[in-house]
Amino acid sequence: MHETSSDSDYVETVIRVRYAETDQMGVVYHANYLVWFEVGRVAWCGARGFQYRELEARDNRMMLVAEASCRYRAPARFDDEILIRTAIGSSNDKVIRFRYETRNQHSGQLLATGETVHVVTDRNLRPARLPKHIGKLFLPSRHA
Amino acid sequence: MHETSSDSDYVETVIRVRYAETDQMGVVYHANYLVWFEVGRVAWCGARGFQYRELEARDNRMMLVAEASCRYRAPARFDDEILIRTAIGSSNDKVIRFRYETRNQHSGQLLATGETVHVVTDRNLRPARLPKHIGKLFLPSRHA
Amino acid sequence: MHETSSDSDYVETVIRVRYAETDQMGVVYHANYLVWFEVGRVAWCGARGFQYRELEARDNRMMLVAEASCRYRAPARFDDEILIRTAIGSSNDKVIRFRYETRNQHSGQLLATGETVHVVTDRNLRPARLPKHIGKLFLPSRHA
Amino acid sequence: MHETSSDSDYVETVIRVRYAETDQMGVVYHANYLVWFEVGRVAWCGARGFQYRELEARDNRMMLVAEASCRYRAPARFDDEILIRTAIGSSNDKVIRFRYETRNQHSGQLLATGETVHVVTDRNLRPARLPKHIGKLFLPSRHA
Repeated sequence: MHETSSDSDYVETVIRVRYAETDQMGVVYHANYLVWFEVGRVAWCGARGFQYRELEARDNRMMLVAEASCRYRAPARFDDEILIRTAIGSSNDKVIRFRYETRNQHSGQLLATGETVHVVTDRNLRPARLPKHIGKLFLPSRHA
Repeated sequence: MHETSSDSDYVETVIRVRYAETDQMGVVYHANYLVWFEVGRVAWCGARGFQYRELEARDNRMMLVAEASCRYRAPARFDDEILIRTAIGSSNDKVIRFRYETRNQHSGQLLATGETVHVVTDRNLRPARLPKHIGKLFLPSRHA
Repeated sequence: MHETSSDSDYVETVIRVRYAETDQMGVVYHANYLVWFEVGRVAWCGARGFQYRELEARDNRMMLVAEASCRYRAPARFDDEILIRTAIGSSNDKVIRFRYETRNQHSGQLLATGETVHVVTDRNLRPARLPKHIGKLFLPSRHA
Repeated sequence: MHETSSDSDYVETVIRVRYAETDQMGVVYHANYLVWFEVGRVAWCGARGFQYRELEARDNRMMLVAEASCRYRAPARFDDEILIRTAIGSSNDKVIRFRYETRNQHSGQLLATGETVHVVTDRNLRPARLPKHIGKLFLPSRHA
């Protein structure tokens, strides 16, 4: 299986680096990129027509993080505007993969790339499936 | 009403500053002191004979933060050992007050002082009272 | 001394609650409001015509947090849009006071109010004064 | 190249889960494991005879995070004691690899495994080498 990744696959959102996110190196502390990826996922869900919080509140489904990885290419700094680009990887109604790029919004410079893998669970963290109307958004045909 | 505050009122616990807690000033980001105060509260509860997590899980009671304040006296730095001292203020089974000191464990230097006020709620954030066996730990006679 | 606080005194900015900012109570962890206040301060500076990061990088001045306090009125929840309103309190070129309101952007409900006090320092955390062109933005005449 | 990983390779340290580290799923927010790995690295350095903060302050060297990954096996919960086990992977004086396990200290259950890759830089984030007396701690002979 191979995935094409046309630009239209990516959902984009922009945040601004908070002072709280820096560390004494003078750059963004690396764990915060995982938080930014989460911001990207929520934006992706919104752009695809459902609210992640509704998935939890109404459908009793959560996307538990099973794996996360990040490669850091260049540092981000306080007050930088950061472009977070989020796309879906090979997924189904039980396992979901996202991939991410973060760039300096002003210069376009690539800052980091990453991936997360999620397992769908119910509120008690037991394996489950996405509801049909949401699950179909994650099928290969949507993003091949 | 006046409170005496003999040293025996304070429960002490020690943490070490994490890199994640610093910011680009090279010192601990100020919001983290509220997290340290929370560590102090949990230690206070443990020293007084109950687990805060049991209060939530078994007794369906939470201590929602209603007010928090902190005065910063001297900066803390990465890898410093921090002494967190926690005492109870005037409290009852519906409203609880804690006060805190943080000190550099090595030098004894005062870093910050603070206070938090909590309202007791049930899991749905509705006002409630502490269970009797726990509420009595917060009565004035305990710490006057 | 009394301060009038017409609405024009407030600088407003909006953020969206991150999943990372929630805790197991299902609401935003209280320390994050201090981070939001910081976001409000940076927005205030921008709206008044200077970049806080430039103050640090070019003018070798920092606004060290000396005091912070927050009163929590109603909980914020994941994915809520939060309006952060920031105004200046009585300040001069050595000590700066901000006050804040956070509201649910959708309902207008007041979530929290707070204040911070800052001392101006140089990069080595020694007391200092703001550069004149910036210091005048904090004088009473600006916000009386 | 293959690495043996006898238990003596691991440096162990224990932390307790903070309320601030939980999210509304009722478990530890996933990005915090990267912070715990950082705690593990600092402990590893200490156990091998040097202080990471001295590396930065005295030797003008930093270990910038270039890659981080984590696999989540089981959730951690508020107030759990967490055992962080840290070992060195194949490293030299310019590139350093750590690997990590986190376990529930009480039950021994594996919670997460992870890896980080670091590039040695100077304080201006330019590539550099570790000082000799520290670099030798990261050579293969130390941990083969």
